[in-house]
Amino acid sequence: MNGLQGYKGLALEILSKANVKIGDNIRILRDGDVFEGILMPRIELGDPNHIVIKLSNGYNIGVKVTAQTKIEKVESKLTPKESMIEFKVEEKENLPTVFILGTGGTIASKVEYRTGAVYPSLSTEDLYRAVPELSSLAKIKTKVLFSIFSENLTPKHWSEIAKSIAKIIDEEKVDGVVVAHGTDTMGYTAAALSFAFQNLPVPIVLVGSQRSSDRPSSDAALNLIGAVRTAAYAPFAEVVVAMHEWVADESIVLHRGTKVRKCHTSRRDAFQSVNAQPLARIVEDKIIMLTDEYRRRNNKEKIILKPDFNEKVALIKFYPGLNPEIIDWFVEKKFLGIVFEGTGLGHVGRNCFDSIKKAVDSGLVVAMTSQCIWGSVRMTVYDTGRDLLSLGVIPLEDMLPETALVKMMWAFGQTLTPEKVKQIMLTNLAGEFSGRIPL
Amino acid sequence: MNGLQGYKGLALEILSKANVKIGDNIRILRDGDVFEGILMPRIELGDPNHIVIKLSNGYNIGVKVTAQTKIEKVESKLTPKESMIEFKVEEKENLPTVFILGTGGTIASKVEYRTGAVYPSLSTEDLYRAVPELSSLAKIKTKVLFSIFSENLTPKHWSEIAKSIAKIIDEEKVDGVVVAHGTDTMGYTAAALSFAFQNLPVPIVLVGSQRSSDRPSSDAALNLIGAVRTAAYAPFAEVVVAMHEWVADESIVLHRGTKVRKCHTSRRDAFQSVNAQPLARIVEDKIIMLTDEYRRRNNKEKIILKPDFNEKVALIKFYPGLNPEIIDWFVEKKFLGIVFEGTGLGHVGRNCFDSIKKAVDSGLVVAMTSQCIWGSVRMTVYDTGRDLLSLGVIPLEDMLPETALVKMMWAFGQTLTPEKVKQIMLTNLAGEFSGRIPL
Repeated sequence: MNGLQGYKGLALEILSKANVKIGDNIRILRDGDVFEGILMPRIELGDPNHIVIKLSNGYNIGVKVTAQTKIEKVESKLTPKESMIEFKVEEKENLPTVFILGTGGTIASKVEYRTGAVYPSLSTEDLYRAVPELSSLAKIKTKVLFSIFSENLTPKHWSEIAKSIAKIIDEEKVDGVVVAHGTDTMGYTAAALSFAFQNLPVPIVLVGSQRSSDRPSSDAALNLIGAVRTAAYAPFAEVVVAMHEWVADESIVLHRGTKVRKCHTSRRDAFQSVNAQPLARIVEDKIIMLTDEYRRRNNKEKIILKPDFNEKVALIKFYPGLNPEIIDWFVEKKFLGIVFEGTGLGHVGRNCFDSIKKAVDSGLVVAMTSQCIWGSVRMTVYDTGRDLLSLGVIPLEDMLPETALVKMMWAFGQTLTPEKVKQIMLTNLAGEFSGRIPL
Repeated sequence: MNGLQGYKGLALEILSKANVKIGDNIRILRDGDVFEGILMPRIELGDPNHIVIKLSNGYNIGVKVTAQTKIEKVESKLTPKESMIEFKVEEKENLPTVFILGTGGTIASKVEYRTGAVYPSLSTEDLYRAVPELSSLAKIKTKVLFSIFSENLTPKHWSEIAKSIAKIIDEEKVDGVVVAHGTDTMGYTAAALSFAFQNLPVPIVLVGSQRSSDRPSSDAALNLIGAVRTAAYAPFAEVVVAMHEWVADESIVLHRGTKVRKCHTSRRDAFQSVNAQPLARIVEDKIIMLTDEYRRRNNKEKIILKPDFNEKVALIKFYPGLNPEIIDWFVEKKFLGIVFEGTGLGHVGRNCFDSIKKAVDSGLVVAMTSQCIWGSVRMTVYDTGRDLLSLGVIPLEDMLPETALVKMMWAFGQTLTPEKVKQIMLTNLAGEFSGRIPL
């Protein structure tokens, strides 16, 4: 460790020449521009031509350097930590109140700039310091519910999140709730919360970050500002996901919780509305509605909480060569339902028919979605689809496979009667079917 | 049945008024335009403002009608069937030879215009009649290998297709092979053929149709012309999928067999290259290469056939609440390998770790892809990924989950030694990893 952790190439060369190390206050002079701040480590392999500094307002920025760029060490009587503490929070009166609930993920973490370690941090002060814009948008309250990589969240955690949110809405006077969440399974949780609440009075906004906040390319600040703006001011009371609309750090898009899917491993615009328009976009300080079909915000509504999920539901992606005994296994294990990700318009191979019949005869609810992701299941077009329908398989139109799984887990959390679950699956509860008005 | 099967709305009204029925020769007069042909039935629910006629050249067209459109019955001494037989095939000399192998699907079927029934049809005469352009492009030979909805194809069928193609290339003097295939699992078969051949001398082009050829919106003709043109003239010798580039009936795009996926249930441009540029586009009669990295066509090459696949490989899509015992079940059932569709950068919940460890300890090859579909697995960024790597899970970068499954089935068809399979999985054999030159 030479005190310039993570730097390489030109940036390392220039920093070494200036004899500075991470944590130092430095000044970067480039083509007449001057940048001043604390030199930050690079956590991941990045562009070797960028130097990252933390500005006095708490922001990190990446400065692209050239061979002509000069670096100076700035003497400061304050330690870096103290200089950050100077930041003053000014809370305005009469702002809406937004509650930020932390569940984990990059968005709710802070990078210790000396070690590069990432730890959960969601105090109001930390947030105001990291993203000063928040203090002029809303009065923020925060709570860390848990701090879990989202791939480790289970339906039990969805219940806990739902109960916490209902409690917050019931007990605190809030104008909206933001849920900071890891992006890996944020789509699943968004669907879960969409079904867990009825009569929502205010918006619930899930937000994540595809790049950690120590990176110059981080999307955390804009996403968080967008989520808080939505929670505070959006005209709707639905569960949505707020993320970048495009790779540029310019606009946010609000996806309906039942129609959203993570469609890229790393891009900032990884989340996409599938088979649906997003609900709204945010450009600068404006929330632009993209549809008039939404549930209106109404603080007088009394939230109805239905937080139970039953994990005895399986998602099976069909593929050539799939062993149909896997279907029998779920029946033997007393599962209650199966959602298939079939091919095309909603098909599986004929070699699965016997096992599907056994499953249906044993009382399991079997439903069909498409692994194409886009488009709609239409099981009346070909023999395969018609035969599956006659076996009792339920066609779920354009519902996302992931949403269908979550919905069936939720349905079996409400009732164990297969006929009722079928009815629930075919009813548009939270916009999960496009082109049909939700109840 | 009133003799106007499938028609409704304005079209039905106008046709009824003219007292014509399906199978009649009719003349449509619309705004000075005149269309003449045999009135065809509408098989599926379509736009109520279109009338479909079969022109004397064998083509079907849809004519949009207005309230002012007039219909006349045309007396004809020929029965509709005879009038179609008039079509003459003119085979040109010195054209390249293309072999079309039928496996099933909409593209290889013909609609009986009186009954609406769909039956397999792939005689050269039928093809020339349906798509007259083909006769000026290539000398066509055809064979129906089987006629199966593609959701019923299994790895055993992939082997049969591969063996048939190798035989055709060995025994017939062909400049390329077209495989007519149902679209449901065409992506899987394209990947399978990509691995089954080495030293390909000529292109192998899979082609399908999203709309049956009796529909005015059918994509069958343009796709087939594009596929034959590719087989006859493309400069590369790779396995590709030829389908519509966009919804308009204008251009064809050629996707590399290992990078293509059906991403919409019904759109004509359902097939997309994922994490890769397509190899080429076809606009009018031009094949426009989009990359210079491809295997060159070379008739002197001697094809190497490796047609074996082992079905003891499973694809598991991870989701919150997944019961890890399913992993144990595959181990008990003596499966050889598992491909995970993990979340985000390549994660599964920590509750699966014990079962994954057991699987690896039992000698299974366990590999990781992402259910995001787009982007690349990167398992060194977070603890979950690093822990999975240390359990022995193989990261498959940007390989499609479906391609990874097919490739592992193929790898275990070549060797039963896990270490060799791992090595195969990490080697770029047919462009399955982007940004790496295939061997």
